[in-house]
Amino acid sequence: MNDSRFLHACRREPVDCTPVWFMRQAGRYMPEYRAIRAKHTLLEICRQPDLAAEVTLQPVSAFGVDAAILFADILLPLIPMGINLEFAAGEGPVIHNPIRNADDVKALRAVDPHESLDHVLQAVRLVRRELDGKTPLIGFGGAPFTLASYIIEGGSSRNYLHTKQMMYSDPRTWHTLMDKLARVIADYLVAQVEAGAQAIQLFDSWVGTLTPDDYRDYVLPHSQLILREVSATGVPLIHFGTGTANLLPLMKEAGGDVIGLDWRTPLDWGWDQVGADTAVQGNLDPVALFAPRPELERRVRAILDSVAGRPGHIFNLGHGILPETPLENVKAVVEMVHEFSVGVGLAPALAQEVA
Amino acid sequence: MNDSRFLHACRREPVDCTPVWFMRQAGRYMPEYRAIRAKHTLLEICRQPDLAAEVTLQPVSAFGVDAAILFADILLPLIPMGINLEFAAGEGPVIHNPIRNADDVKALRAVDPHESLDHVLQAVRLVRRELDGKTPLIGFGGAPFTLASYIIEGGSSRNYLHTKQMMYSDPRTWHTLMDKLARVIADYLVAQVEAGAQAIQLFDSWVGTLTPDDYRDYVLPHSQLILREVSATGVPLIHFGTGTANLLPLMKEAGGDVIGLDWRTPLDWGWDQVGADTAVQGNLDPVALFAPRPELERRVRAILDSVAGRPGHIFNLGHGILPETPLENVKAVVEMVHEFSVGVGLAPALAQEVA
Repeated sequence: MNDSRFLHACRREPVDCTPVWFMRQAGRYMPEYRAIRAKHTLLEICRQPDLAAEVTLQPVSAFGVDAAILFADILLPLIPMGINLEFAAGEGPVIHNPIRNADDVKALRAVDPHESLDHVLQAVRLVRRELDGKTPLIGFGGAPFTLASYIIEGGSSRNYLHTKQMMYSDPRTWHTLMDKLARVIADYLVAQVEAGAQAIQLFDSWVGTLTPDDYRDYVLPHSQLILREVSATGVPLIHFGTGTANLLPLMKEAGGDVIGLDWRTPLDWGWDQVGADTAVQGNLDPVALFAPRPELERRVRAILDSVAGRPGHIFNLGHGILPETPLENVKAVVEMVHEFSVGVGLAPALAQEVA
Repeated sequence: MNDSRFLHACRREPVDCTPVWFMRQAGRYMPEYRAIRAKHTLLEICRQPDLAAEVTLQPVSAFGVDAAILFADILLPLIPMGINLEFAAGEGPVIHNPIRNADDVKALRAVDPHESLDHVLQAVRLVRRELDGKTPLIGFGGAPFTLASYIIEGGSSRNYLHTKQMMYSDPRTWHTLMDKLARVIADYLVAQVEAGAQAIQLFDSWVGTLTPDDYRDYVLPHSQLILREVSATGVPLIHFGTGTANLLPLMKEAGGDVIGLDWRTPLDWGWDQVGADTAVQGNLDPVALFAPRPELERRVRAILDSVAGRPGHIFNLGHGILPETPLENVKAVVEMVHEFSVGVGLAPALAQEVA
């Protein structure tokens, strides 16, 4: 386990080659997943530890990725908080009781993850047992801003109108909501680590809609609370968002051993923004997985080359795998990353020795 | 007319105060517009010069903005090219014959704007006559990438899967399509200037989904062709996109006297990216118009203060006005910008003289 290249890269230690995994690597593009999904709803899979574990392990067996990530949904902890959530077919999540005012926020319940989310913790234990130390397991949760945006808007959003209206018009209610979410997520993530998760990723997927000033005032302290509490467990933390070019130094300030970037931000530029004392994760455009092989190869190589010689790069997509993604390209990227990056995470002198 | 603070700011000349207009300033949030829209479809308004002119003038009368922008839709020139376009209620544009391969691209027709888009040119002439030199008129068009994304995807998109697939898999067809679009848009914009438009804005609203490398290889030359041809007419050009933090130097290279920024990018930081020899436009979050007055005021002031003393700022939103926007806040922002910025576009010494 100590030899995991993924965990080494999180800590910016030398690696034999660049580790690679994919956000949403267990999902609809895999026939093994679709076979299970045909018989169960998304929530059923999340709630039955044996199914969640099975799905988690599918991409590890199929592609030899360097990390497993627990199959779950960032919205799960909202259910015991009192959110009436439905995954409508083809529409994404729908929340039937959106949170719009102080009373709504007050009604949200605190959550003991050992009670209401025990199925997730069981899945973590099952996966760890199955992986048997061969591949590390990442646990994860949604960051308070991204969760708040779902429960305030009632689902996905383009403009985040109601979310920002609460921020701007009723900052006290906003901060109460963010604090409630942060405390639930912090406990949930610590429980995942205690159950066996060896790294944690905090998904602030939609935070890129904010100005840096708004991020600092309305989001940073709450994400920081989570990242500080989980950091105390000692596992590496990955802090991820999309559209974050102008937020990177502040996301770093909020916390994270690794900052995850989307494809819009060049990886080397982004790394300069967060500083050399931080690792980075990313950042192939998920749509590049639909490109012809030589073009895909060129893009994988460009990312690796842009950060060659800087220890602490974890290869990933800039966002989740799309459902129509060709399987064979996912497998090919794992092989390319390993092959093209032998010695790449080492200082140039050391790399020469290895080669 | 020579005294227009909008045109002066486009050329980075001193102004008495910062000019302000709003993207989509004529639209559903105005009762005068809704009254006309109740009797006509969007396409009818665009195609009847007297209606288009009337709607164009509504925000000028109502709010005293410093520029009018022609009421039209960026997708209009696609119709004579052979695109079967429908504005479905509440869903945005739907294209019934999406362009997916070389044959589809070949079938797209060249357009003489004086024939197929004469209604737009007539509207420009009508508006100029009505404005009578008191307020300048901005013409506009869609940039090739943004137009291509609509016709390839068949409407709005989240991931631009088909668009990027054509780029990556069939670059020859991609460039043929982009060149066809660029030539149509260049002629269309030059015709708008000849009809009387005193500035032109090129909307590349969705270009922020690209990496800088892809922008350079697949988009820049085509936007550049348009901006170069329109620039030869002598009117100032505004080049706008959203999510463009990492694209700004390349957008500047493509062209534009003014670069338009969304709210995610701090205006002063963005200005440093494009250089002091360029003006900037932006960049209040459209959702800020829903904030309580003191909060709105704080945000307007922060933007003005961040670029005080640098001639060449045009105040605008970071994207179009949302349909539910409170009218009174739009009016208030025009007044705030004018009041808070007296002398702000002048060098500090000159500003003191004015004050």
